[in-house]
Amino acid sequence: MDSNTPTPGALRKAADLGRPAGGWRLHLYQVVYESDTPAGRAFDKLIIAAILVSVAVVVADSVPALSQRYRTAFAIAEWIFTVLFTLEYCARLVCVDRPVRYARSFFGVVDLLSVLPTYLAFVFPNVHALLNVRILRLLRIFRIFKLTDYVVEYQLLAEALAASRRKILVFLSVVLMVVLILGTLLYVVEGPEHGFKDIPTSVYWAITTITTVGFGDITPRTDIGRFIASVMMLLGWGTLAVPTGIVTAELAARRLAEGPPPSPRTCAACGAGGHAANARFCAMCGTVLPPSS
Amino acid sequence: MDSNTPTPGALRKAADLGRPAGGWRLHLYQVVYESDTPAGRAFDKLIIAAILVSVAVVVADSVPALSQRYRTAFAIAEWIFTVLFTLEYCARLVCVDRPVRYARSFFGVVDLLSVLPTYLAFVFPNVHALLNVRILRLLRIFRIFKLTDYVVEYQLLAEALAASRRKILVFLSVVLMVVLILGTLLYVVEGPEHGFKDIPTSVYWAITTITTVGFGDITPRTDIGRFIASVMMLLGWGTLAVPTGIVTAELAARRLAEGPPPSPRTCAACGAGGHAANARFCAMCGTVLPPSS
Amino acid sequence: MDSNTPTPGALRKAADLGRPAGGWRLHLYQVVYESDTPAGRAFDKLIIAAILVSVAVVVADSVPALSQRYRTAFAIAEWIFTVLFTLEYCARLVCVDRPVRYARSFFGVVDLLSVLPTYLAFVFPNVHALLNVRILRLLRIFRIFKLTDYVVEYQLLAEALAASRRKILVFLSVVLMVVLILGTLLYVVEGPEHGFKDIPTSVYWAITTITTVGFGDITPRTDIGRFIASVMMLLGWGTLAVPTGIVTAELAARRLAEGPPPSPRTCAACGAGGHAANARFCAMCGTVLPPSS
Amino acid sequence: MDSNTPTPGALRKAADLGRPAGGWRLHLYQVVYESDTPAGRAFDKLIIAAILVSVAVVVADSVPALSQRYRTAFAIAEWIFTVLFTLEYCARLVCVDRPVRYARSFFGVVDLLSVLPTYLAFVFPNVHALLNVRILRLLRIFRIFKLTDYVVEYQLLAEALAASRRKILVFLSVVLMVVLILGTLLYVVEGPEHGFKDIPTSVYWAITTITTVGFGDITPRTDIGRFIASVMMLLGWGTLAVPTGIVTAELAARRLAEGPPPSPRTCAACGAGGHAANARFCAMCGTVLPPSS
Repeated sequence: MDSNTPTPGALRKAADLGRPAGGWRLHLYQVVYESDTPAGRAFDKLIIAAILVSVAVVVADSVPALSQRYRTAFAIAEWIFTVLFTLEYCARLVCVDRPVRYARSFFGVVDLLSVLPTYLAFVFPNVHALLNVRILRLLRIFRIFKLTDYVVEYQLLAEALAASRRKILVFLSVVLMVVLILGTLLYVVEGPEHGFKDIPTSVYWAITTITTVGFGDITPRTDIGRFIASVMMLLGWGTLAVPTGIVTAELAARRLAEGPPPSPRTCAACGAGGHAANARFCAMCGTVLPPSS
Repeated sequence: MDSNTPTPGALRKAADLGRPAGGWRLHLYQVVYESDTPAGRAFDKLIIAAILVSVAVVVADSVPALSQRYRTAFAIAEWIFTVLFTLEYCARLVCVDRPVRYARSFFGVVDLLSVLPTYLAFVFPNVHALLNVRILRLLRIFRIFKLTDYVVEYQLLAEALAASRRKILVFLSVVLMVVLILGTLLYVVEGPEHGFKDIPTSVYWAITTITTVGFGDITPRTDIGRFIASVMMLLGWGTLAVPTGIVTAELAARRLAEGPPPSPRTCAACGAGGHAANARFCAMCGTVLPPSS
Repeated sequence: MDSNTPTPGALRKAADLGRPAGGWRLHLYQVVYESDTPAGRAFDKLIIAAILVSVAVVVADSVPALSQRYRTAFAIAEWIFTVLFTLEYCARLVCVDRPVRYARSFFGVVDLLSVLPTYLAFVFPNVHALLNVRILRLLRIFRIFKLTDYVVEYQLLAEALAASRRKILVFLSVVLMVVLILGTLLYVVEGPEHGFKDIPTSVYWAITTITTVGFGDITPRTDIGRFIASVMMLLGWGTLAVPTGIVTAELAARRLAEGPPPSPRTCAACGAGGHAANARFCAMCGTVLPPSS
Repeated sequence: MDSNTPTPGALRKAADLGRPAGGWRLHLYQVVYESDTPAGRAFDKLIIAAILVSVAVVVADSVPALSQRYRTAFAIAEWIFTVLFTLEYCARLVCVDRPVRYARSFFGVVDLLSVLPTYLAFVFPNVHALLNVRILRLLRIFRIFKLTDYVVEYQLLAEALAASRRKILVFLSVVLMVVLILGTLLYVVEGPEHGFKDIPTSVYWAITTITTVGFGDITPRTDIGRFIASVMMLLGWGTLAVPTGIVTAELAARRLAEGPPPSPRTCAACGAGGHAANARFCAMCGTVLPPSS
């Protein structure tokens, strides 16, 4: 394919941010935003590696033993990554026709949040917690995710969740009501002396229980409290079936639309398999199929 | 639509509680019970807001720090909500032809329980726990729920659960038997010295375990007890599949009756849809399909 | 129906235990084993009530406070139930043609275990734990379960589980291997000083973790142990899908064979609904159906 | 079947490792690698028994009380198993045409790891932990598993998981990102004084929570931490549906391709099956159906 012809995905992005018409900015655009050229793919790999290593540094830096031992190495690595990501951010800004739209987009904000904490922590050394914001760099992986071979699976899951969105919302609102009422009930029954110190804490416990997490930091001590908790657990167990059922029904409807797994029926003309049980013609080349067994 | 023509939902309600034939009571009825007029929709929004804020006050009032600081503000807010809900209750009573039927209905009782605790706590200041009954105001949201755009999802979930009711009942009764027998077994094996102080407590532990909540406030200490607990956990894990399977099968049957997710591609010759994304020919009649988007 | 004509279920039982041909033994048989006569149904209800109350007495008797207070009442109730169940056991023995086959059957043994502990505890007063065997009386409810309206749901669940039996067995054997290997790994990594005192205990912990119960009585303390535990939890979470998927797929296949939930298409001749989307004739009266929308 | 004719499975293995053409090596090959002859089946059973007993010895040897009591018996048993497995390993090596390929294969390495620890522990008596590697003998059961009647169920599960592999990978990578970001958030909010001592520990806690295991060894103490944890639990509960949905949709597609559970009733006129239990007419051609059993 001519590398100057934008792919459908690139076209959509171009429509969003303004793909330049030519010149060095188009070349930079193809490297930074697209992954159809060797340089673009190499850039994606470099950025993914940099993100993963820099996140590993953030994580390792939080461990006191490692932090003290490799203080200088971590600081140097951090500045290298910050400079790299800053350059990338600038490149993304200059090579699009609508830089403000990019800066305001979700990934534009995430890109800025990836570099800002390091500069801010240099200016205000006391606000050390800021540095942990750098973990949001992880979100940048999603951008590259969209360009990989896994995009079909990613979209399928996203679509199934989106199609179930309203059902899950209704379900969660009912669960929230149940949890508020039962949490208050346990607050009245058990009271602050057994750890249920106020309604928010009791609701936290009720969520812990109904989702079957069960930390055990707060537990009912009275017989009546334990009875109510038992009913809640069985209730939570039963209703656990509902979100699963919603998502599964949606995924199953999509999966069944694809047809059954490869069956012994293959097209004699083109060799394609995976025909639906009631298909009479090959969906790949139009030849008549042998009858289903 | 002529606002005087009752909607099907309104008709059902009218049949229940007696929709007045006309006059100011019909206008009040349309505002309070229906949501087809601008005034009715505004009333619904006001009531939902009042319920949510008043529940937030009840929750915040249970936190000692907040309760002491905003004592007066909470008391004033509470009386405003109580007066508002009392007026609403009276309005609901006077604008229907069968007020007694309303007062005895589920929502009539909930509406009364929403205001009564405040008056009772004024008369009997010692019974402070009464005030927590106000949390039941949350249930009133369900009434408005029935009138919103989400009613389809709400009914779908309710119908799927109702259709699975008998299967879930049989399942729960078997689980209760298993839990009683295994709880008693652990009571005999572990005994009061390891926290299994009587059969009800052991059954509470067994429910904790089989639902995979696992608080950890009571745990087996002997080897034989741990062996039985291990079998129980694997059993619970396996049977967890059953309620999920029941609800999912029901939801999937309904979802599949709706057909596959909307695909823009249908065969121009025979009209068949549901083609796989990579199909090039109609599997039903062999005609060339339009290309996938 | 002529009460002397055995029902299909009664016929199967008759084939098992020998339904008497006539006389007072047939009448007794109809009362004790069948539920087609008013006396048989009354007997079933009496036995269910006796089982539930006697189990409640066993449970209450284990609570020290209740046990001391109602010692005499519990003892009297227990003897009444024991006599009643003994009489029932004798009745079941005398009214069948093959009493030995009954005595050796599953329910025959359970019936004996329901009464034996009380007599044994009278002879050997020291073996108090014996009395808890009486909880097995609960199993007797299953016999009556088989004769109720819920038998269809009960059989559907039992059949779906039976059809998935081999898949679940293969799955459980793989889980057992994983749990043995990972439990041993944690035993080596964490060691007895962190609670992983031997391989059986570590395997108990691994089952606790992979089933997502998570008591928290034993938890990894080292970083490497926590890392392995994290992998285990994600693994357990992922594989939790497998038994659910097995049972759901089986239940869905059965549910879909029943057809979709009632659709707007009803038969113009007999009014029956619930026709499959591709049905062309009413399955109840054979009339041509209107085409599917 | 002529025992000299290799079965399809044997042919595949022969292609892998080189099935000898004849002589005593072919006879040994049939015993050791195949299970079509009585000697081959007896050998498989012997090896399974030896594996299970030797694993039981490894497990029992880790319990201090048993280890001290049966020290000599365990040592003797261990040497018998080691000699047996060594002989088996040599037999597997000599009877194939490509012994190096066998030695490098997965099962070749597992077979070596089954015997090596005992010899190494004899040479280096201090490295006692080595002996626990023997638990890997369990993996050898999978080889025989492939030759049993359960191979169909085993393959079905393996294929459904393999077909869902990419979807589950995408799902797990999203979960890992969520867990890293939320773990860091809790680390900032709660801090080392509440047990969240560094980001790896916080991520371990986040995995514990989102998978609903909930050990309770680390729990949030602040109100804001508990609020975030509550959102995480509901999130985890909701997303638990996703892997279940993926696997279930795949299994259901395979299960449905098999058709509904065997129903004895088929239409005598058009042959259609899958009639509802209460159908009296064929829904495809309108013919009267035979009565349900």
